[in-house]
Amino acid sequence: MNDSVENPKIPAFVLVRPQMGENIGAAARAMWNFGLDRMRIVAPRDGWPNPAADAMASGAGRLLDEAIVYDDLAGSLGDAAFVFATTARDRDLTKPVYSPEAAMAKAAELIAQGQRVAVMFGPERAGLENDDIARANAIVSVPVNPQFASLNLAQCVLLMGYEWMRAQAEIIPEQVEMAGTDWADNSEIEHLARHFEERLDVAGFFYPEHKAASMKVNLRNMWSRLPLTRADVQTLHGTLRQMVRWKERG
Amino acid sequence: MNDSVENPKIPAFVLVRPQMGENIGAAARAMWNFGLDRMRIVAPRDGWPNPAADAMASGAGRLLDEAIVYDDLAGSLGDAAFVFATTARDRDLTKPVYSPEAAMAKAAELIAQGQRVAVMFGPERAGLENDDIARANAIVSVPVNPQFASLNLAQCVLLMGYEWMRAQAEIIPEQVEMAGTDWADNSEIEHLARHFEERLDVAGFFYPEHKAASMKVNLRNMWSRLPLTRADVQTLHGTLRQMVRWKERG
Repeated sequence: MNDSVENPKIPAFVLVRPQMGENIGAAARAMWNFGLDRMRIVAPRDGWPNPAADAMASGAGRLLDEAIVYDDLAGSLGDAAFVFATTARDRDLTKPVYSPEAAMAKAAELIAQGQRVAVMFGPERAGLENDDIARANAIVSVPVNPQFASLNLAQCVLLMGYEWMRAQAEIIPEQVEMAGTDWADNSEIEHLARHFEERLDVAGFFYPEHKAASMKVNLRNMWSRLPLTRADVQTLHGTLRQMVRWKERG
Repeated sequence: MNDSVENPKIPAFVLVRPQMGENIGAAARAMWNFGLDRMRIVAPRDGWPNPAADAMASGAGRLLDEAIVYDDLAGSLGDAAFVFATTARDRDLTKPVYSPEAAMAKAAELIAQGQRVAVMFGPERAGLENDDIARANAIVSVPVNPQFASLNLAQCVLLMGYEWMRAQAEIIPEQVEMAGTDWADNSEIEHLARHFEERLDVAGFFYPEHKAASMKVNLRNMWSRLPLTRADVQTLHGTLRQMVRWKERG
């Protein structure tokens, strides 16, 4: 029960009465995928340590070595200023309900203020009991298909870990549209369009003659609309030059 | 290969060369948790149907019954106007990179416009190959701990399904540029890419020989990245045909 190794800057994930060792190991892997390594385990059915958990955790075994095991739930939550209870089912409880995204944003905010946060996950089949949820400040409801809500323990841990990482990554733009790409500038597109027009003219592409002008406009429109890089433009020039060489070989 | 049962209002999830039946079954469960039931499978290692997949899919077995199995990747993507390739590693490819959230928001937007969307998932260990990714319009990069990126196939499917469900909650119909445009689908782009490759091969473009393979991948990447309309594709085919006629006139 050495708490001192834990990093207070991330939430503790608390597995409440987990059953299968395999699932505890899979939960460790899911956590470490998102940089989370504060695992707490309350009254594991098969005791602790658990060889099946170790076997499954490969690469994330350290989390199991450092996991803190408690006999009862109250002990595992003692240091937390704010506790979330995860659930896939709707509960008739008077408590704020957060989406996973909102929950982990709230967790990040509380932690930035120096508070400790814990997230509870229930046992495999039954999930958290109402007595467990009563100890939470808020519920996290994972949106699933109402016809088929079958997230397992590690999957629920995975989604919360994913949202934790997303909450950290505010600086990272949602969509990196080819950052750093060397886009062709307007004069290069113009040059490419002219090159195509000249070669295709020689090849007799713009036919019949009364349609030639609108065909040329359409081609220009296409080149200027496409997001071409400098490398694309060079490649396309190269294809034209090669066609000419091919022609000249006769 | 009966496509008619598929619902075009959701993305197809395409498992590319999956190995273990258990993982295919787990992927089906992950999908159905978020209301997704369009599964496509390309060249499954252990053939199809697969009893191990059925055993794992309990409750989501219908997805396996209705899954469409393809011999090659091109067939599986043929009807898609926009294809995402999921990857946990950074790739040195000139293609837009989306977060899972941005990707599924984009998918929802495209689907609302009547387009078909596919999301590719690679085989368990190796992930998608560069040749596979060359057929995608964009990459989805899942943010994971750089020290421990060990998402399995079903977990990757789970995260994308989760983001799909989140994207449904808030579809804000945007005024999208070129709404109503008749975009080329993947099979048309594939055909165009092959046509260019064949003509340029004959013309001696892919030289020196040891660079030919990478030159071809670069060209494929370019064609799949560009937002080409059906009319653009016809124009580009026409330019090639005209070059051949020009050559043949001697």
